[in-house]
Amino acid sequence: MIEKRLAGLRAAMDSQQLDCLMVTQPNNIRYMSGFTSPDAVLLITAREALIVTDSRYFEQAEQQAPDFMLIKITERMRTTLAEAVASLSARRLGFESHAITVELYNDYRAALPPELEWVSVTNLVEGLRASKDAAELETIVKAIAIADATVEHLMGWLKPGVSELEIAWEVEVFMRTHGAKAMSFSPITAVGENGAMAHAVPGERRLQVGEMLVIDIGAQYNGYCSDVTRSFCFGKADDTYLERWNLVLRAQQAAEAGLRAGMPGSEGDALARDVIAQAGYGDWFGHGLGHGVGLEIHEDPRLSRLATNPLPEGSVVTVEPGIYQAGWGGIRIEDCVFITPNGCQVLTKAPKVAVIG
Amino acid sequence: MIEKRLAGLRAAMDSQQLDCLMVTQPNNIRYMSGFTSPDAVLLITAREALIVTDSRYFEQAEQQAPDFMLIKITERMRTTLAEAVASLSARRLGFESHAITVELYNDYRAALPPELEWVSVTNLVEGLRASKDAAELETIVKAIAIADATVEHLMGWLKPGVSELEIAWEVEVFMRTHGAKAMSFSPITAVGENGAMAHAVPGERRLQVGEMLVIDIGAQYNGYCSDVTRSFCFGKADDTYLERWNLVLRAQQAAEAGLRAGMPGSEGDALARDVIAQAGYGDWFGHGLGHGVGLEIHEDPRLSRLATNPLPEGSVVTVEPGIYQAGWGGIRIEDCVFITPNGCQVLTKAPKVAVIG
Repeated sequence: MIEKRLAGLRAAMDSQQLDCLMVTQPNNIRYMSGFTSPDAVLLITAREALIVTDSRYFEQAEQQAPDFMLIKITERMRTTLAEAVASLSARRLGFESHAITVELYNDYRAALPPELEWVSVTNLVEGLRASKDAAELETIVKAIAIADATVEHLMGWLKPGVSELEIAWEVEVFMRTHGAKAMSFSPITAVGENGAMAHAVPGERRLQVGEMLVIDIGAQYNGYCSDVTRSFCFGKADDTYLERWNLVLRAQQAAEAGLRAGMPGSEGDALARDVIAQAGYGDWFGHGLGHGVGLEIHEDPRLSRLATNPLPEGSVVTVEPGIYQAGWGGIRIEDCVFITPNGCQVLTKAPKVAVIG
Repeated sequence: MIEKRLAGLRAAMDSQQLDCLMVTQPNNIRYMSGFTSPDAVLLITAREALIVTDSRYFEQAEQQAPDFMLIKITERMRTTLAEAVASLSARRLGFESHAITVELYNDYRAALPPELEWVSVTNLVEGLRASKDAAELETIVKAIAIADATVEHLMGWLKPGVSELEIAWEVEVFMRTHGAKAMSFSPITAVGENGAMAHAVPGERRLQVGEMLVIDIGAQYNGYCSDVTRSFCFGKADDTYLERWNLVLRAQQAAEAGLRAGMPGSEGDALARDVIAQAGYGDWFGHGLGHGVGLEIHEDPRLSRLATNPLPEGSVVTVEPGIYQAGWGGIRIEDCVFITPNGCQVLTKAPKVAVIG
C-alpha cells in the first residue's frame, strides 16, 4: 500500500522536476508513511524514503513506517535534516508551503545547503489522497457506520425538552462508546430557526414538539472521518416543511443519480442546485454541494460552482444540498458517496424521514 | 481589561520600533481582542485596533471584541488586509512568524504595500500572556477545581480490572459533565510499568491490586487550561514505592516553598531537582520541573535547566517533579501554582496520598 503511494508520489514529483520532497503536513506524513504523530518530517526522493524524528518516537516510527528509513534526531531537527538532505544530493527540494510556518522554514533554510532550490508545492500529496484505496474505503465505511448508528440512536432517544448541548453530548458519548476515537468535528444540533445557520453552535435552546432539527455529525475511526446530516421535524410537521424537505431530498437524489468520475466539480454541484433553483429556492442554497472526506473532514475534491477540476475515481465526497431561511430554519440532507467511472455508490445508510418521534 | 492589554502590547511594540503588529496566532487573537474564533487577523497600531474577519463572524466579532474596529472582508482576506494596512500608514509591520504559513505570508506580502518592512516577532503577545490578570486567574482556578474534583472522583471510582482507556474515558465524561468544555489534553492514565513513560498513551492494560497508577489530566474552562498529576498505588504499596513517592513529594514541597517571581526558571527547576539528585535519583528525572499554563496547556514561562528568563509575577506554572524507571514504573506529582514576588500560592487542591482503595 505504502509502496503504491510512494510510486504515485514519485511520478507526481517527476512531473515537477523535484528530486526531493519534504513532507510536513501531518496527514500527508501519515498517508505516505503510516506514522501517526505530527512530530516528524519525511524526505522522499526517487530512490529513498526517510523519516526524521526524535527519541520519543523512534520505536513508533520503526513500527508504523517500515517502508521508511528512520533518521534519528540527535540534537535538533534542522541539523539532522541538513545532513539527510546533503546525503541525498538533492538540488530541487519541494516543500509544503501551506504546512510550514515562516519561522520553521527560515530555520531549516538557513541550516540546509545554500545551493538548494526550494519549490513551493501545495497539492502533491493531497492530490493522491483524493482517490481512496481499498483499505481506506473500508475504514471510511466503518466511520460512516458509527455515524449512521448515532443518527438511529438519536431518533429513538430524542424527547421534548432536551437542549442542543444535551443532544451534542449524547452524540459524543454514543460515538466514543461505539468505536470512534474522536468526532470528525463538533456536532451541529440545531433546533428551530437555529437551523438557518449552516454551522450553528449548540446552545441552551430546547427541542419542543413540532420543531425542526438539523443534526450534522461525524465520527473518526482509525484516523478517517465520516460526515452525515439529517433534518426532521419532531412529532409533527407543517406542509411548508414537508414540501421543502422533499425538495432537498429530490435535489440530493438527482445528484446521487448523476455524479461520476471525470465530471467537473461544478457540474456535480449543478445536479442538485438546478433542482432547488427550478423550485424557486436557488438563493437559499448558499454553500457548495459537497467536499471530499478522508483523513480530514474537508479535503479534495470539492463540489461547488467554482470547482473546475474533474472528480477523481475513488474519491469519497459528501452530497449535502440544503435550504436556509433566516427566522424560519433550515433543511440539509447529507450522505457520503464513493465516486466511480459509472456513477456513485451511496455509503451512508442512516434513514431519511421528514418527521420523527 | 482589553485596554490594559493593548497598552502593554503597545509599550512592547514601541521598544521594537514596530508601528503595526499583525496578530495571527489564535490564542493571541483571543487574548488581545476577546474574539474566540481563529478566522481573523488583528492589526494593532499605537492608536488603532482593527479586527479583520469575514461575514460568518461579523456578529461574533462585534459582540466579543468591542474594543476593536471591525473591518469586513468583502472578497479576500489579503485584499482587505492591504487596504487596512494602507489606511494605517504602517511602515514597520511586526508579524508572528511562528503562527503563519509560508503560503499565507507570501500571499499577504504580495498584496500589501511593497515598501512595508516585515519584522518577525515570536514572543510579543506570548510575553504578556505569561502574567495572568485577576479575571484570568479566576478562570484558571475554576479549571483547576474541575480537575481536582475529577481526581477525587477517580479515587473513589477506581476498581480492579478497569483499563487505562476506561479510566481515561471516565475522566473525560466526568470533566465534560462538570463544567469543562474540553480537556486540556488527552488524559494520561498509566498503569504499572507504563508509568515509566512520562507521556504514556492509555491502552488495554488493566489495573490490579498492588499496581502503580499515574493520572495526569487537565480540564479546559472558558478557554483556560488546568493540569494536575497524582500517582498512587492501588490497594497496597511496597517500601520501594513509598520511599520514592515520598522523595517526589519532598522535591515538590521544596520547589513550592522556594519559587518566587524574578527567580530564573533554571533556579526554580533546581529547587526540586537537587532534592531528587541528592537522593541518588537525578538520572531518573528526565524532564523539566514545569511550564506555564493558561490559554495553552504549555506556554511561557518554563521551569527547566535551560530556562534562564526570570519567572514573571502573576504567572501560573506547573510544579511536577517525577522519577521514572523503565520496567518498573513512574511517580509524578503535579500542582499548578501562582507566582508572586514573595513566593508561590499552590492552586491545586487534589489530595496527595501514596496508596488508595
